[in-house]
Amino acid sequence: MNDEVDSISSDNLPRARRTSHVRLDAVLGRNGEALSPRALRKLLEQLQAVIDPRIGEIEGGRRARALIDWYESATLEERLDLWQLMSEQFVADQSKAKAAQAEYVAAIGTPDEAAAEVRLRRDTVSPRRRILQRISVLPEGVRFLVDMREQLLPHLRAHPTLAALDVEMEYMFSTWFDVGFLELRRMSWDSPASLLEKLIKYEAVHDIRSWADLKNRLDSDRRCYGFFHPRLPQEPLIFVEVALLGNLAESITPLLDESAAAADLTKATTAIFYSISNTQPGLRGVSFGDSLIKRVVDELKEEFPRLKVFATLSPIPGLRNWLGKNASRLLKSAPARTQQALGREVGEPVTSKALLAALERVAELSETSALRRWLMSCGSEYLARGIDGIRPIDPVARFHLGNGARVERLNWLADPSPKGLKQSYGLMVNYLYDLNRLDKHRAMLAQAKIPVSGQIKGLIST
Amino acid sequence: MNDEVDSISSDNLPRARRTSHVRLDAVLGRNGEALSPRALRKLLEQLQAVIDPRIGEIEGGRRARALIDWYESATLEERLDLWQLMSEQFVADQSKAKAAQAEYVAAIGTPDEAAAEVRLRRDTVSPRRRILQRISVLPEGVRFLVDMREQLLPHLRAHPTLAALDVEMEYMFSTWFDVGFLELRRMSWDSPASLLEKLIKYEAVHDIRSWADLKNRLDSDRRCYGFFHPRLPQEPLIFVEVALLGNLAESITPLLDESAAAADLTKATTAIFYSISNTQPGLRGVSFGDSLIKRVVDELKEEFPRLKVFATLSPIPGLRNWLGKNASRLLKSAPARTQQALGREVGEPVTSKALLAALERVAELSETSALRRWLMSCGSEYLARGIDGIRPIDPVARFHLGNGARVERLNWLADPSPKGLKQSYGLMVNYLYDLNRLDKHRAMLAQAKIPVSGQIKGLIST
Amino acid sequence: MNDEVDSISSDNLPRARRTSHVRLDAVLGRNGEALSPRALRKLLEQLQAVIDPRIGEIEGGRRARALIDWYESATLEERLDLWQLMSEQFVADQSKAKAAQAEYVAAIGTPDEAAAEVRLRRDTVSPRRRILQRISVLPEGVRFLVDMREQLLPHLRAHPTLAALDVEMEYMFSTWFDVGFLELRRMSWDSPASLLEKLIKYEAVHDIRSWADLKNRLDSDRRCYGFFHPRLPQEPLIFVEVALLGNLAESITPLLDESAAAADLTKATTAIFYSISNTQPGLRGVSFGDSLIKRVVDELKEEFPRLKVFATLSPIPGLRNWLGKNASRLLKSAPARTQQALGREVGEPVTSKALLAALERVAELSETSALRRWLMSCGSEYLARGIDGIRPIDPVARFHLGNGARVERLNWLADPSPKGLKQSYGLMVNYLYDLNRLDKHRAMLAQAKIPVSGQIKGLIST
Amino acid sequence: MNDEVDSISSDNLPRARRTSHVRLDAVLGRNGEALSPRALRKLLEQLQAVIDPRIGEIEGGRRARALIDWYESATLEERLDLWQLMSEQFVADQSKAKAAQAEYVAAIGTPDEAAAEVRLRRDTVSPRRRILQRISVLPEGVRFLVDMREQLLPHLRAHPTLAALDVEMEYMFSTWFDVGFLELRRMSWDSPASLLEKLIKYEAVHDIRSWADLKNRLDSDRRCYGFFHPRLPQEPLIFVEVALLGNLAESITPLLDESAAAADLTKATTAIFYSISNTQPGLRGVSFGDSLIKRVVDELKEEFPRLKVFATLSPIPGLRNWLGKNASRLLKSAPARTQQALGREVGEPVTSKALLAALERVAELSETSALRRWLMSCGSEYLARGIDGIRPIDPVARFHLGNGARVERLNWLADPSPKGLKQSYGLMVNYLYDLNRLDKHRAMLAQAKIPVSGQIKGLIST
Repeated sequence: MNDEVDSISSDNLPRARRTSHVRLDAVLGRNGEALSPRALRKLLEQLQAVIDPRIGEIEGGRRARALIDWYESATLEERLDLWQLMSEQFVADQSKAKAAQAEYVAAIGTPDEAAAEVRLRRDTVSPRRRILQRISVLPEGVRFLVDMREQLLPHLRAHPTLAALDVEMEYMFSTWFDVGFLELRRMSWDSPASLLEKLIKYEAVHDIRSWADLKNRLDSDRRCYGFFHPRLPQEPLIFVEVALLGNLAESITPLLDESAAAADLTKATTAIFYSISNTQPGLRGVSFGDSLIKRVVDELKEEFPRLKVFATLSPIPGLRNWLGKNASRLLKSAPARTQQALGREVGEPVTSKALLAALERVAELSETSALRRWLMSCGSEYLARGIDGIRPIDPVARFHLGNGARVERLNWLADPSPKGLKQSYGLMVNYLYDLNRLDKHRAMLAQAKIPVSGQIKGLIST
Repeated sequence: MNDEVDSISSDNLPRARRTSHVRLDAVLGRNGEALSPRALRKLLEQLQAVIDPRIGEIEGGRRARALIDWYESATLEERLDLWQLMSEQFVADQSKAKAAQAEYVAAIGTPDEAAAEVRLRRDTVSPRRRILQRISVLPEGVRFLVDMREQLLPHLRAHPTLAALDVEMEYMFSTWFDVGFLELRRMSWDSPASLLEKLIKYEAVHDIRSWADLKNRLDSDRRCYGFFHPRLPQEPLIFVEVALLGNLAESITPLLDESAAAADLTKATTAIFYSISNTQPGLRGVSFGDSLIKRVVDELKEEFPRLKVFATLSPIPGLRNWLGKNASRLLKSAPARTQQALGREVGEPVTSKALLAALERVAELSETSALRRWLMSCGSEYLARGIDGIRPIDPVARFHLGNGARVERLNWLADPSPKGLKQSYGLMVNYLYDLNRLDKHRAMLAQAKIPVSGQIKGLIST
Repeated sequence: MNDEVDSISSDNLPRARRTSHVRLDAVLGRNGEALSPRALRKLLEQLQAVIDPRIGEIEGGRRARALIDWYESATLEERLDLWQLMSEQFVADQSKAKAAQAEYVAAIGTPDEAAAEVRLRRDTVSPRRRILQRISVLPEGVRFLVDMREQLLPHLRAHPTLAALDVEMEYMFSTWFDVGFLELRRMSWDSPASLLEKLIKYEAVHDIRSWADLKNRLDSDRRCYGFFHPRLPQEPLIFVEVALLGNLAESITPLLDESAAAADLTKATTAIFYSISNTQPGLRGVSFGDSLIKRVVDELKEEFPRLKVFATLSPIPGLRNWLGKNASRLLKSAPARTQQALGREVGEPVTSKALLAALERVAELSETSALRRWLMSCGSEYLARGIDGIRPIDPVARFHLGNGARVERLNWLADPSPKGLKQSYGLMVNYLYDLNRLDKHRAMLAQAKIPVSGQIKGLIST
Repeated sequence: MNDEVDSISSDNLPRARRTSHVRLDAVLGRNGEALSPRALRKLLEQLQAVIDPRIGEIEGGRRARALIDWYESATLEERLDLWQLMSEQFVADQSKAKAAQAEYVAAIGTPDEAAAEVRLRRDTVSPRRRILQRISVLPEGVRFLVDMREQLLPHLRAHPTLAALDVEMEYMFSTWFDVGFLELRRMSWDSPASLLEKLIKYEAVHDIRSWADLKNRLDSDRRCYGFFHPRLPQEPLIFVEVALLGNLAESITPLLDESAAAADLTKATTAIFYSISNTQPGLRGVSFGDSLIKRVVDELKEEFPRLKVFATLSPIPGLRNWLGKNASRLLKSAPARTQQALGREVGEPVTSKALLAALERVAELSETSALRRWLMSCGSEYLARGIDGIRPIDPVARFHLGNGARVERLNWLADPSPKGLKQSYGLMVNYLYDLNRLDKHRAMLAQAKIPVSGQIKGLIST
């Protein structure tokens, strides 16, 4: 319902990359040609016909459906033509907009202000938006538009003019997919297989390898919640996997171990959010993740009054890349004794290149390794000081810190999978949601100060 | 989903007049005093605090809830103060609005147009709207706002400056209560009593006198459908009662006769919509009725493929009042032989006053009565030619004709209840929904031509 | 599942007297004639055809359905003929039964015992039972048989030979309606109207006068539970109404007062079972009541852990009748000073007749009235010592004491309705379910000792 | 509800062999010792205590639960002791049984017959049965007993005296699991994963190899139905998989092909039942299969009025074994030219041993192979004439023919899986359910005549 209030973006969360509609992909695969000028003109007329002010809703619906049918059998080139037309041709009427706005500005502060604003908003709806609205009214319309945007997104870079259509869709989606309409639902092993199948498909953090893997994640010591929307009823828009434990999880491995026994729920004090995935690439820019975590915390507290700690076990997707670019600087600024110890371990003279090469075998480092200490220090630096403007560099950090969490603990070799090694040399981090300090932490972040625990501070100063 | 597309208003339908929250009524009853200047200042600060940009969502929610609590224990005078503040103080920033709009107008036709428009819409959100948005995010927020508007509406005439707040709420409601989010549900004798109770409360056309009356309206030869919205889940926003018959109903009496046997469904060819009621006075101006009828027609065709005729049996609420004002003119323009016949029946010289007096005993008129013929002729005139600008005068006619129906048949003494006599001397009308001609009829209406049947045309020329 | 374990009968509870099938009543009303000898022979053949061992299940089902059809259009006289035939003609084969039993008795104690018993049970199924079994397999079969027994029961006295059929049905019903198959469901104002309507119809203790009365009984401080069976899914077999209070209810009046405010649930310590009704007269002899109370107590303890006291507020249906027969004896055995006080109050010489006459105005007796004290003493005597063989005389007492409750408190003018005055001069009684003593109380009862509270003992000795 | 009417046994269907309770298996695996005489005496007393007539239901339930607890931690040897005790010690009282039976026999034909029979049944309940009844009343009681019988069954051969307990349980199960209480439910890809998982576990005809295999069997052109019982609510007792096709399926291969496209439902004329599995080994002897097929046929006809043919594609589990024993005889009785052709194909002199050896490579036989013709002839002989007493030899044939189906078509290499080759050299058979002839076919079967199609007759005479 907060359509125009700014909110933290859950875009920073991993998002399912697989597209959902194989048939469309197949169609897109075939190397089509763009429309002829004649066909272009026909398409333009078809678009105009959809928003002809003289037709009623029934006829309007019929024309919108015909447009969808055209789209579904169109080649990629033809679709690009459509997107181009919608971006460039269906723009607002400048003089009408000017007049309505002048009228509105004049009314500000008078009793007519609100009415003038409503008139303004109605009168200045761009024709492009009217087309989208017509489509959205069809039962399958919202599903279609979300998919269309998913298909458009990869072409934005090559075709910057399509941004107008993209922005329009993002804005409309953010209105429609208001959190006020989202329904939180628990998913469990008793949920329909057709729904659980989508978790397998959409999981974007730690791949679900099999139904047995999935079943383990829905065991008695786990919870899985998702947000559902009435216009896309068959699938979660975003979902989170939670483990209920006796302590702060320090590695993902036991959580994904299918043969491990379920934890004793009567002793659970800690809820670990170990995977959050967005499912709809077409909803990029529309945010639900922060509400999800808050609603899930409420549900969990209701079901398990003994829970005291709410935290994540999160990947650090940008660490390795950042370290690659900053290793020299970090090495130079390290205390002399650290440099010496590193030299003893990887050979003198110690270079950032040598350090990075040695990190390829991170799993073999001993507990007392200087390289290990250095990597932990760099990771803490990245999380605690890595600020880009006023926002954390790491996308996952951006999300959780934006929600009011703090950086709690860095965990060594917490994700030894190839993906984990590739993203962050196996490091993972816990973000802590201290419910009494969320607003305080957000206020700190607004001043570009990242809230961190003592452990993290200690690691930096190493 | 068509938030900004114009649509026919179901406001013309009868609407439940009883307010839904007895407790609030009780509170309002006590004759309160307005706030002191000091209290006013405090309330102003409380409102400003709700939209303080520095607070997070949790704190914002807390403050919105405190505002609701304040409201619920406030007197009417205090509430008027609140409404006044929201209408007059929380206006947009004129210079900021001007700048944003200039930027937008400049961008029209450029690739940045859509983004500029989104910025415009976000930047020019009035503080008043931000308050409403904050409230709407609370679980009970939408229910609260709809009720608050219901309480505000009766005071608009005496306090015209409240219009700003009213228009704002209407606009936001029209966004939130988009038909795309409405769920059509059948209600039957198997529905929860707590839901059916609301039909009794909200029925606005033919009062439901008892549970036995209600049960008759949910019998096997009836259907009752309503639109439900996820944010007001426990009650229909609008509902319609349908009778399945072998012919076009010509009187409401047998339909409301609890002792009448149910019609034989295998022989039903005709669906009669005999009551449509809006339930939420606070949603005035937000329209669902046209979609309701179309969706119900679809449901009925699915369940009963033999149905061929879809029509209403409707009241004519404005007839008596209109006739009171136009009787002289109508009498004068009547053919001489009609005037003579009327004279023979009510006494010479015939006057409009005498005719109206004689109509008080309309139920006693014989089939051959000249007065009866004259009343039928006047009624047809009213329905077929009663145009106010380009819209039918009669509010119910306005609704059904706006949906594309036509005036089909005028029925003598079809509602002999005191209410029926008081509204229209007992006359009722069938509006016919010919699914193949809805758009055609709407087009006619757009040219101020009311589509009518041959029977109606014949009656006029009597 | 305990089909052959003896259980306390809930038959002692009030049972709905109205029959459920108006159409059948109408049919029964027409004064039919019995069947001609020829028609009787035909009916006999039809019955035999149903259990012809050579036919399959499909043909068997067809014939059973034809029998139902015959029954539904038969007159009462014809039905009596049918019942007579089933009672007298479809008996077991004596020689076969003898042989099977000899075989079984010989097998007792040998490894073949169980198999021999199974053979015995299969081989000695009477043809009468086979007919009932065939009918029971039809989807509507069990409903039909329960209704048929309801219609048969009133004729047992006049036609004692029908007892064979009646006993057979009771036995089969007790097998089918095993408590193991009963589902406990809460009914509330959110339940389907079609279900709640049945509460109104079946309530047998305190008539439900209107939907408003019903709604009051389903208010937030009330609970209503019923047992449902898969073969009669649309209606409760028995249901109980419970009020949650802060103390032991001493009068039914406030509980039935629709305008009274709901009790504060956070302070409720006491659950009062104030109405238990059987709904199916055709299930006479099949008992569910004791299980119902135990299951409901479990549900309530789960929902309201603070509840400490579980008790009834019950009618004493047999008191007035018993007092009419025993007043002389009770008067004679009263202490002299009681007799004197009574004399002062109703006039000398005091007679039982005079006392009973004075009791007609029981509602007017003052707190200090001797007659009032005497009535309380008689009521206690009735409840605490009224034993018929080893069973309490009062039917409701029989039920609750059989469940292990004890007589807790006698309440003056607790039911001032005409029915209450007629049954028990307005007295009502609380039976207390002390969960730790149910078995102990049952053991006392088995020795014909009625467990009572100190208050009751004190009243007797007055 | 037809507890004592004989019915066709679905025991002939394949049944899941895996036991459902791993934990118990583990326990059973440990090599326990039998009870000491002292412990045996204690167990005997414990059993007697459960049915002590002096205790109430609450105490009785407590004792039954203690017995279950004892059992669940007992070794196999200790369980065998328990079973032995229940079989041998808890027998009926012979003299009491004799007296009750004499009384009953005397009452046959008198009005007291039914009551005497009820008394007989109640009075002669064996103590063994009373123990089972006490257990069954517990919520988990029926589940426990079904599992206990599953565990007992494998030991019957070695311990024949346990038959008494086994027969007792079978009889009670057949009463409780009456088809009247079974609920038919469709299972689909939208069913809970926890339920579908059980299909994978219980499928006994064509193993479900993966969730993808399962999903294929629940595709749009398939249906899957099962019977559920209120006392074992979480799993189907029996289930059937159906394919909707345009013709009579002649091979299982395309039906199990996950990559095959779904059939066009609008053209489906034929429902093929290609897998029916019992799931509860502990319910051996209790039959639901015939009702299942009839109920499913009704469901399918309702959903797809165009369906004309209902048939199975069934394994022939006993063929290979039977052929091994009868090959010599069949070879000798074959026509001379068949013998010569076989000789040409497998070498002279042709022996049954050589034929069976050649059949090991059945998949390689050409269409014109004499061996192939001979095998088809033998298969037809087996199905059409293989009678053991009055029942077909093949267990699956026994089931379907018992339901009234006929042997319709023998299919070459219809199941080329190792299991198919091992059971029947890859042959499968269609049984046809001609709804108009089920009773006629059953009547034929009752005279030991197997109904077969012309194709089968033709094959025999080859």
